[in-house]
Amino acid sequence: MSIKQPLIFITNDDGYQAKGIQMLIEAVRSLGEIVVVAPDGPRSGMSSAITSLQPLRVSKIKETENLKIYSCTGTPVDCVKLGLSEFVDRKPDVLISGINHGVNSAVSVLYSGTMGAAMEGCLFKVASIGFSLDDHSADADFSACRKVVHTMTRKVIKEGLPVGTCLNVNIPKEYKGVRLARQAKGQWVEEYTKSKDGAGKDIYWLTGHFENDEPQDPSTDEWAIDNGYISVVPTKIDMTDHNYISEKRDWENLI
Amino acid sequence: MSIKQPLIFITNDDGYQAKGIQMLIEAVRSLGEIVVVAPDGPRSGMSSAITSLQPLRVSKIKETENLKIYSCTGTPVDCVKLGLSEFVDRKPDVLISGINHGVNSAVSVLYSGTMGAAMEGCLFKVASIGFSLDDHSADADFSACRKVVHTMTRKVIKEGLPVGTCLNVNIPKEYKGVRLARQAKGQWVEEYTKSKDGAGKDIYWLTGHFENDEPQDPSTDEWAIDNGYISVVPTKIDMTDHNYISEKRDWENLI
Repeated sequence: MSIKQPLIFITNDDGYQAKGIQMLIEAVRSLGEIVVVAPDGPRSGMSSAITSLQPLRVSKIKETENLKIYSCTGTPVDCVKLGLSEFVDRKPDVLISGINHGVNSAVSVLYSGTMGAAMEGCLFKVASIGFSLDDHSADADFSACRKVVHTMTRKVIKEGLPVGTCLNVNIPKEYKGVRLARQAKGQWVEEYTKSKDGAGKDIYWLTGHFENDEPQDPSTDEWAIDNGYISVVPTKIDMTDHNYISEKRDWENLI
Repeated sequence: MSIKQPLIFITNDDGYQAKGIQMLIEAVRSLGEIVVVAPDGPRSGMSSAITSLQPLRVSKIKETENLKIYSCTGTPVDCVKLGLSEFVDRKPDVLISGINHGVNSAVSVLYSGTMGAAMEGCLFKVASIGFSLDDHSADADFSACRKVVHTMTRKVIKEGLPVGTCLNVNIPKEYKGVRLARQAKGQWVEEYTKSKDGAGKDIYWLTGHFENDEPQDPSTDEWAIDNGYISVVPTKIDMTDHNYISEKRDWENLI
């Protein structure tokens, strides 16, 4: 009887042809059997969006003994749901998502398709990691990520993660180590550029920049990245504010 | 000098013409000035998705002294971002989203456009509430929600909410009171129906049902709704697993 290798499920939000996911595959190639189900094109900013009113289609891109690659017409979360439901023969030992072109630190975790996919893996009780590189360019150099992805994925295959918690890993272009961090507080500001379309009608383009409410706090992911560290934020899918529940029981007498 | 009335910002994920948002407007009409910026059609399951590669367009649907209604081509979060950036003259006293056709309890909070909008309000430091009714039908009877929406919105205008926390309110068709609850643990299972398109190619439709990991636990939102209570889940936008950070410092010696 053959002992099965670890099964590694890979996805992203930039599409199966992106440089980032190619590096992800390359970095963990020696760690086990790989199944990739990734979008057929860019799906940035898709958060945990799911497709319910349209059908999904899947195309087989590549199949070798230890590596299968499928592209899917859906969102990153669709890729995880459909991939784990229909395109693996057993529960994966780890799910990795990325490598995103650009960081997903602080509140950007809420908008990120890369992290949406990792949270979805987490819902399937698969240990999951989202990786992002602090470089938005399409031809970004991902070689600095190879060792990080390999080492972290190997650790998570071996040790697992708590049920309900996944990792949000952001990698600066040059790094001097790893910081376990929390999601920084802040918001995006000056978010729209108003212009005109060809018919002279108003249109609005999303733009803006992140305003950090706590730039000096070394416990945050933003501080880690700004100071040359890889940030690892353990991210929970239980969003309940448990303190509020203990403090505000008066809601129960309202109606 | 006139004292300004409370400003109430309203959005949803079912589109500005949905029955649910009409009830939301009606229920809070007497509480202040209202600005609605809502999608121009259904955007269910859009989570916190944002539109960055396409421009957004906005149409004015209605304008009276105390009620402005705009429709927007974007997602629920786009409506909040663009609405709060460009279509209000001051910071709203409250943001309400919904009323969704169908519950957004347990892990469905991750996929919900209704709650994506409430979380976005929260990022703008506006006290925000997402409302959902346990009835998926397009012509659902929302009259049972009128008092709930009015009373809860008035309470939040008066008392506010902690920065970074919004409320996820789910309303059964008939209710006997309110329970402050936490997000139930569980997952969606048997999620896809495979069929063929007109050309005989495989397509996959999202379906499935929610499997509750803790059906007997009265502290959860699922229990509350199943037992005839309105569930109020205080929901945090900080998703950090702080326990993991204190316990797993070994990550910092990894690389």
